[in-house]
Amino acid sequence: MNKPLINDTFLRACLRQATPHTPVWLMRQAGRYLPEYCATRAKAGSFMGLATNVDYATEVTLQPLDRFELDAAILFSDILTVPDAMGLGLSFAQGEGPRFASPVRTESDVARLQVPDMNKLKYVFDAVSSIRKALDSRVPLIGFSGSPWTLACYMVEGAGSDDYRLVKSLMYSRPDLMHEILKINADSVAQYLNAQIEAGAQAVMIFDSWGGVLAHTAFKSFSLQYTTRVLSQLKKEHEGQVIPRIVFTKGGAVWLDEMADMDCEVLGLDWTADLSAARHRVGGRAGTPGKALQGNIDPNVLFAPAQAIEREVVDVLESFGKPHTDISCSGPTHIFNLGHGISQFTPPEQVKVLVDTVHAHSIKMRANNS
Amino acid sequence: MNKPLINDTFLRACLRQATPHTPVWLMRQAGRYLPEYCATRAKAGSFMGLATNVDYATEVTLQPLDRFELDAAILFSDILTVPDAMGLGLSFAQGEGPRFASPVRTESDVARLQVPDMNKLKYVFDAVSSIRKALDSRVPLIGFSGSPWTLACYMVEGAGSDDYRLVKSLMYSRPDLMHEILKINADSVAQYLNAQIEAGAQAVMIFDSWGGVLAHTAFKSFSLQYTTRVLSQLKKEHEGQVIPRIVFTKGGAVWLDEMADMDCEVLGLDWTADLSAARHRVGGRAGTPGKALQGNIDPNVLFAPAQAIEREVVDVLESFGKPHTDISCSGPTHIFNLGHGISQFTPPEQVKVLVDTVHAHSIKMRANNS
Repeated sequence: MNKPLINDTFLRACLRQATPHTPVWLMRQAGRYLPEYCATRAKAGSFMGLATNVDYATEVTLQPLDRFELDAAILFSDILTVPDAMGLGLSFAQGEGPRFASPVRTESDVARLQVPDMNKLKYVFDAVSSIRKALDSRVPLIGFSGSPWTLACYMVEGAGSDDYRLVKSLMYSRPDLMHEILKINADSVAQYLNAQIEAGAQAVMIFDSWGGVLAHTAFKSFSLQYTTRVLSQLKKEHEGQVIPRIVFTKGGAVWLDEMADMDCEVLGLDWTADLSAARHRVGGRAGTPGKALQGNIDPNVLFAPAQAIEREVVDVLESFGKPHTDISCSGPTHIFNLGHGISQFTPPEQVKVLVDTVHAHSIKMRANNS
Repeated sequence: MNKPLINDTFLRACLRQATPHTPVWLMRQAGRYLPEYCATRAKAGSFMGLATNVDYATEVTLQPLDRFELDAAILFSDILTVPDAMGLGLSFAQGEGPRFASPVRTESDVARLQVPDMNKLKYVFDAVSSIRKALDSRVPLIGFSGSPWTLACYMVEGAGSDDYRLVKSLMYSRPDLMHEILKINADSVAQYLNAQIEAGAQAVMIFDSWGGVLAHTAFKSFSLQYTTRVLSQLKKEHEGQVIPRIVFTKGGAVWLDEMADMDCEVLGLDWTADLSAARHRVGGRAGTPGKALQGNIDPNVLFAPAQAIEREVVDVLESFGKPHTDISCSGPTHIFNLGHGISQFTPPEQVKVLVDTVHAHSIKMRANNS
């Protein structure tokens, strides 16, 4: 029923298949750095007004694709829709971050917590269907969710935090309660992502944005274990197509060996990672198993002049090295991205330099037979 | 002239010599979590009033030693004294972080920058001498400085930052200017630490608090290179005593291999590091070269009940494993510390649990012949 994708480089690279160029998309590519996004948001009145309105969500998801030659679209939404559907009362005050009216801090708060009725998140799945239709097979659509641990951080802190004192106090004092929260979060995230897949998401990404604040052993028990629980429940195919799963732990480069065994197709990395070493450790060789790698340029590069952006993009591409080009088997592939969401202060014309350089240089690398 | 140290376990462990227990001290151990610190600060009127008054600085440095069986004292001061002496105009507004009146952002700002006259920092060296006298050889005194990169972050941003946009914009746009700032910072830090050593500091620590925000290759060029430049200029001995040098890069566990070659005695690690793996990679075996390791418990553990603190302390000690006990040669040693400064909200009685558990359990580990 669906037309074949016009540009399927992103999905092919997720599955470690050879592509003519290195696909590129940007975390938070539909965002405040684009004047057209700000105009739509002004019409919507608020961030949640934007996220819950299917037409507006569709409009802003497609905006960056009209400006830049991006190889994937990502659903416009927020990672906190799931705890909001659990009844914690999400709001975004002007100029501030997200806030929950009813944070989860006590034994009785945890006892009340449940996997939310997915009907409360229907606006998200409707947006996915609407965006798929609007994309008209130009590029694939990525669905996403926060990781169980990252959602728990917001649910316990009640807002952003710079020291994670409340959530870590609970974790160290009452690990039993924390595990209970994380189990519910994992099962909720799995249902949420599966519903996005059914609505048309062609790949899904789990944002473990705060996994990197955990201590070494706590990361395994409180983050990795529950991301794994999500992955084990996800649909691997939909309508005959494999649905690649991307896991991104900000600050997680130090635990690459621990993450190598996860049952997912793609690992996202931030800029602290050495892509060459990461490819060696988890990328696999042509014809052997491994994971595709996604990342990892510092978004602050986009504040430099064009020539410096070109130099830094080339450095990141060359640090991964030439992707495999053998169409008869799978092998190491790279999906270019930032190591974190794009800054609201980014000049849009610099984004064009980045995207165009990724394409031009990665084509050149493939032509080079050395 | 100086009496021998009554407790020299910290210095011995820095030099990879066997000790009867694992020494422990805490980053920011003289701080707002102690009511007696708050009382002295109230008398001083302001943070800089406290730091620049030799008597007050001495008083607060010794306060935690009177409460807890700590194995080292650390000079009470701030990492921003050096850029303040460069004329950037440091202030601490009530309830806010530090701020510079004249941040360094343009070519002409950089051209004006110079290694400061060390006489402007005489209050720091006087505090070191005064603290040494007050300590009366109970435990050794650690001097410290911010790293060249960390100082540059504050100097360019003009204050704390959550995205390092200004300093990274300068770094990517005008690397020549950034290198110039870092050279001046490195030479300033080296003079500053040498003067602390002459005044009586028995070990020195370089806090690369913001090294971890850099991309992989940028870390080597803009942080590690200049920490190395500082280390190469430091006095290795004073009055016949070796002066151990500790380097701590917050978020630097991912670059352990890069840091292993630094010319310093001790590597500080945050809680994301696996001490067992770190010992294997940089700790050396008995009779072979290597570095002592310092760290790395999550300070948020101190918000848990006593039993949980004991469990987490034991976990950290056991993750390093039994230190070598051969008094005839050097070998792997561990200095217990937090992975970051102690939180102002910490209950002091929980600190006692931590310190006492480190001592009791580490003695037990040494007695165990398995």
